[in-house]
Amino acid sequence: MSVPDFVSEALSHSIELAIENVALGGGPFGAVITSPAGVVATGVNRVTRDLDPTAHAEVCAIRSACREIGSFDLTGFVLVSSCEPCPLCLAASMWARVGSIFYAADRTHAAAAGFDDAAFYELMDTPRSSWPSSPTQVNHSLFDAPFDSWRALDSRIEY
Amino acid sequence: MSVPDFVSEALSHSIELAIENVALGGGPFGAVITSPAGVVATGVNRVTRDLDPTAHAEVCAIRSACREIGSFDLTGFVLVSSCEPCPLCLAASMWARVGSIFYAADRTHAAAAGFDDAAFYELMDTPRSSWPSSPTQVNHSLFDAPFDSWRALDSRIEY
Repeated sequence: MSVPDFVSEALSHSIELAIENVALGGGPFGAVITSPAGVVATGVNRVTRDLDPTAHAEVCAIRSACREIGSFDLTGFVLVSSCEPCPLCLAASMWARVGSIFYAADRTHAAAAGFDDAAFYELMDTPRSSWPSSPTQVNHSLFDAPFDSWRALDSRIEY
Repeated sequence: MSVPDFVSEALSHSIELAIENVALGGGPFGAVITSPAGVVATGVNRVTRDLDPTAHAEVCAIRSACREIGSFDLTGFVLVSSCEPCPLCLAASMWARVGSIFYAADRTHAAAAGFDDAAFYELMDTPRSSWPSSPTQVNHSLFDAPFDSWRALDSRIEY
């Protein structure tokens, strides 16, 4: 499909970042947060270098962009990634209120390189009752107390 | 359901952290990474305080636990959270290879307090074609180049 020039440029940029990152000992993923006004932040996969399983390229780019603009809300910005965002990165973009997402390679290409993006998407599409180990709800008398405190706080900052 | 004592204790701990965090200006969520050998790390929601939309309690606990044990792999550890992990936190626990997850409140309780956990789960369960804005794949001649570089690197650290 045809995309705006700033998206095409960010896509090439994200792929360059991904290739460079492999040479630096990181995973083969790069991402850019951008808008028609220009690039706000970039990110690369730093899982193994930072010992942080959440340090995916898109998550790093989102964190960096938020620091750059001084907000936890990226409404109006675009996420461009060398590869289709995995469930972690997709959910991160939802919480960040990113307006739209563009990518080059997809989960099948990531799987061919040994990554679990597609496997995790498949698992999340499967009923939890069939998971090897699914999240388990445990009764606790105070389960709603944090939300009660939240609702009672007039100065709460919603997100 | 009945759970081991170390899980019950971590669940109470996560709820205490969540309540304390509201008073500190954060979101009403707490999490603990633990095992039968004891607590490894805790985390609270720091989205608004750190201007980081990915700083959910579980993500913060996972990052902290990884720093603590010096690995990006939490195989054998348990994630205990005051509330059902959202898609971001669930995917983070998959990438971190957390063994099992226990929680008190669930997505419906979070929704009643104004949080989008349930809405994002619903969106992810809906065909992308019906999303207001869905991730878009764009053709790029170098789409597979990062993965080619990765496969060619003998010293790559897989995760």
